[in-house]
Amino acid sequence: MDAIGLPLRLLAEFVGTALLVAVVVGSGIAAAQLSPDDVGLQLLENSTATVFGLAVLILLFGPVSGAHFNPVVTAADWLLGRRAGTGITAHHLAAYLAAQVAGGISGAWLANLMFDRRVFEIATKDRITIGHLVGEVVATAGLIALIFGLARTGRAALSAAAVGAYIGAAYWFTSSTSFANPAIAVGRILSNTFAGIAPASVPGFVGAELLGGAVAVVAVLALYPRVTPATAAPPSAGGLELDLPRSP
Amino acid sequence: MDAIGLPLRLLAEFVGTALLVAVVVGSGIAAAQLSPDDVGLQLLENSTATVFGLAVLILLFGPVSGAHFNPVVTAADWLLGRRAGTGITAHHLAAYLAAQVAGGISGAWLANLMFDRRVFEIATKDRITIGHLVGEVVATAGLIALIFGLARTGRAALSAAAVGAYIGAAYWFTSSTSFANPAIAVGRILSNTFAGIAPASVPGFVGAELLGGAVAVVAVLALYPRVTPATAAPPSAGGLELDLPRSP
Amino acid sequence: MDAIGLPLRLLAEFVGTALLVAVVVGSGIAAAQLSPDDVGLQLLENSTATVFGLAVLILLFGPVSGAHFNPVVTAADWLLGRRAGTGITAHHLAAYLAAQVAGGISGAWLANLMFDRRVFEIATKDRITIGHLVGEVVATAGLIALIFGLARTGRAALSAAAVGAYIGAAYWFTSSTSFANPAIAVGRILSNTFAGIAPASVPGFVGAELLGGAVAVVAVLALYPRVTPATAAPPSAGGLELDLPRSP
Amino acid sequence: MDAIGLPLRLLAEFVGTALLVAVVVGSGIAAAQLSPDDVGLQLLENSTATVFGLAVLILLFGPVSGAHFNPVVTAADWLLGRRAGTGITAHHLAAYLAAQVAGGISGAWLANLMFDRRVFEIATKDRITIGHLVGEVVATAGLIALIFGLARTGRAALSAAAVGAYIGAAYWFTSSTSFANPAIAVGRILSNTFAGIAPASVPGFVGAELLGGAVAVVAVLALYPRVTPATAAPPSAGGLELDLPRSP
Repeated sequence: MDAIGLPLRLLAEFVGTALLVAVVVGSGIAAAQLSPDDVGLQLLENSTATVFGLAVLILLFGPVSGAHFNPVVTAADWLLGRRAGTGITAHHLAAYLAAQVAGGISGAWLANLMFDRRVFEIATKDRITIGHLVGEVVATAGLIALIFGLARTGRAALSAAAVGAYIGAAYWFTSSTSFANPAIAVGRILSNTFAGIAPASVPGFVGAELLGGAVAVVAVLALYPRVTPATAAPPSAGGLELDLPRSP
Repeated sequence: MDAIGLPLRLLAEFVGTALLVAVVVGSGIAAAQLSPDDVGLQLLENSTATVFGLAVLILLFGPVSGAHFNPVVTAADWLLGRRAGTGITAHHLAAYLAAQVAGGISGAWLANLMFDRRVFEIATKDRITIGHLVGEVVATAGLIALIFGLARTGRAALSAAAVGAYIGAAYWFTSSTSFANPAIAVGRILSNTFAGIAPASVPGFVGAELLGGAVAVVAVLALYPRVTPATAAPPSAGGLELDLPRSP
Repeated sequence: MDAIGLPLRLLAEFVGTALLVAVVVGSGIAAAQLSPDDVGLQLLENSTATVFGLAVLILLFGPVSGAHFNPVVTAADWLLGRRAGTGITAHHLAAYLAAQVAGGISGAWLANLMFDRRVFEIATKDRITIGHLVGEVVATAGLIALIFGLARTGRAALSAAAVGAYIGAAYWFTSSTSFANPAIAVGRILSNTFAGIAPASVPGFVGAELLGGAVAVVAVLALYPRVTPATAAPPSAGGLELDLPRSP
Repeated sequence: MDAIGLPLRLLAEFVGTALLVAVVVGSGIAAAQLSPDDVGLQLLENSTATVFGLAVLILLFGPVSGAHFNPVVTAADWLLGRRAGTGITAHHLAAYLAAQVAGGISGAWLANLMFDRRVFEIATKDRITIGHLVGEVVATAGLIALIFGLARTGRAALSAAAVGAYIGAAYWFTSSTSFANPAIAVGRILSNTFAGIAPASVPGFVGAELLGGAVAVVAVLALYPRVTPATAAPPSAGGLELDLPRSP
């Protein structure tokens, strides 16, 4: 049942996170180039592409690694899984986080390469305000609550569409445009574009995301207090993994 | 079967309605800031974010409280359920309405906080015209007919996507931009922005919404006259609740 | 099995077609008012609202009348059903068409009322070109082939989403913006707005739609030559009707 | 089980590819005409129409031919199917490719006819840059990996929605706007419009697409190494074909 080896899982997390950042950054570059006169239109183009891209990446990599692509998702899976006797192990946790951050960085480079930019650059866009940090707590709490709420109610098959839709709302209703993901925040440092974030803003964003994740774990335990065997998350997959016949 | 206690239900209605108003108001603020030159584009950004956000909130809170978020939905559940021997009780009805209105107010405050606005402000946007009131009757009638039409034909699992889609149309085809919800109308008083409504316009809007709800109840009884046990709404959930294993 | 009486079916066709025209015309009025500087943006707003609205109306009225809302759909159901021994009868056909056209007209009036326009007006927008007529043949052929193709392959449950999506493409890729429906074409005469059509253009459009419907019937018979009992359209519902327990 | 004859399959591939190019080119013409001031808005209109149109065409023609519409999909089906003892034969492969390219050309002509342009014209838009070629490798690799990843995990029923969504992201996040299809690239030569491509750019694009397809085949074999009988692609359909009762 847990027949997919760690190397293949890490490959899926690395490539998936890289492509997710390439979607976010790449569509941001395209939007800024093609719609120079209206920042809202740029964000609409960027958010629409991200909704579709994120949903597809979850479909594609979910059966392999659970399609976390996000250190807060992986950490929440570890925390919530410890209670249920399921969830990712501490050893896998560290490896997942490393693959996600490496993927985030690589994705920004890929976007720069595709759009004929210098591969290495550092963003200068400062994003820290009180409102943005509150927004980032809300954005991450909503994301984590959604993922584990669906898993604990036997509806993980809806995750791809629902998580895509969530981001389509959160780009707009949170003032921070909903990074909600430390690996993506790190990757976005390396793109001095519409979607970039200055290095000095990243620690604040990551702190807010971790706080949001903690809020979500409490909310999930309050709202969905008991998990039956049928709805428990499979080991190491955050509840996102499909039950598929696989070879060892 | 009705193992979810009232306090948890009320928490879900409060948080869900708050987040719904935060989505509506927050994305409205973002749209007005980022696309200052085209009000239609602002509404497209606002409606797109609302479609996604509403669908996700129904998925997230549906299994707990039925995800009403709307006094007209709760009242219709009570009315229609009395006939079928199901539906929310009068006692729960009052508690639901209070949680929804409190949520609506809190959501506007959260949006103001995220966007670095004063937390307390009052909208000045007058919205009363004959056309807007007719629009609000149509908008609410359609929403209520859709929710209970799906429930009575065994398709409540489609509610999240369908209700989101409905609002995506109703923002545009009704002249009132489809508030269709007294709790949201009250919440929007507290945001002097794109999505706000002056207090003097709220009684008219709420009256039109109640009238629309009454029209929908008649339409539902005409179009779907008999409910079988298999399609009856579960107690206190307006037909939206999934049949989930839950702890007491 | 055919327990839903004709009067209830006609009510559903009348109200459904009226609301469909109200969505098309109403969102067109809103778009033209709110985005005066870019006709493409107006069409994007109009098409997005129509995608959502049409899908929802099919969900809502499908179980009652089959949610045809379109004389070409009803006529194709009659033609294709005669071969299979199913389909709407000639008597019901005439009543459906009358309800649809009356609904189309009423929907334009409702939109005018909601947007504080004169209730009675006649469109002056001439739409006849060779390209538009070719576009209208293509648009209607695609619509009819999709509806009956889904029905004949046992996927009628996808009709609401698929027909909505189809119109979202057809508004753009056909030069005529895809009326694809004589009842809607007649209704649009009565709105001198973005979505209107001059009376002199209607016969050409209706002729092209009928030709498109004929092309689609041939294509459906070629592509899906045999219908099994499991996939045959239920009587009088064009394959769109769900199998629901109903009272007489 | 393989009861659908080759002629009907080729008809489906021809008409489906033609309509796909008509959607891409036609909506591009409409967008450029209606939104002359913002190229990003044009691309948003074009990509939205393509998302919807592609999903619908896969639904419509999938049960007949597998809805490849793309020589790289057909070639990958042949390559991957040889291992599993399934997949399209070399003889069918050549016929599919011919039908797809003929469809691509015809679709451009149809779009020109609908929009009252000269039927025969040659695009002058040069699209070759290093970034565009990298983008085209990424775009095609993602498309092929998605299609066969879904098929090998028993989720081919999601292909229509997922492939549509993928293109909605790839139009934006790849610098090449994601042609990802040699038959469409050839068809777009014949439209000197927004969506056109100069003949001199086509060999580079096709080469990049084939390279992307090869990358995807390797990725699919790595990520989904074993195929069970239940998830194997049916003969000649690339895993996209539904299991339908059909006549000989």
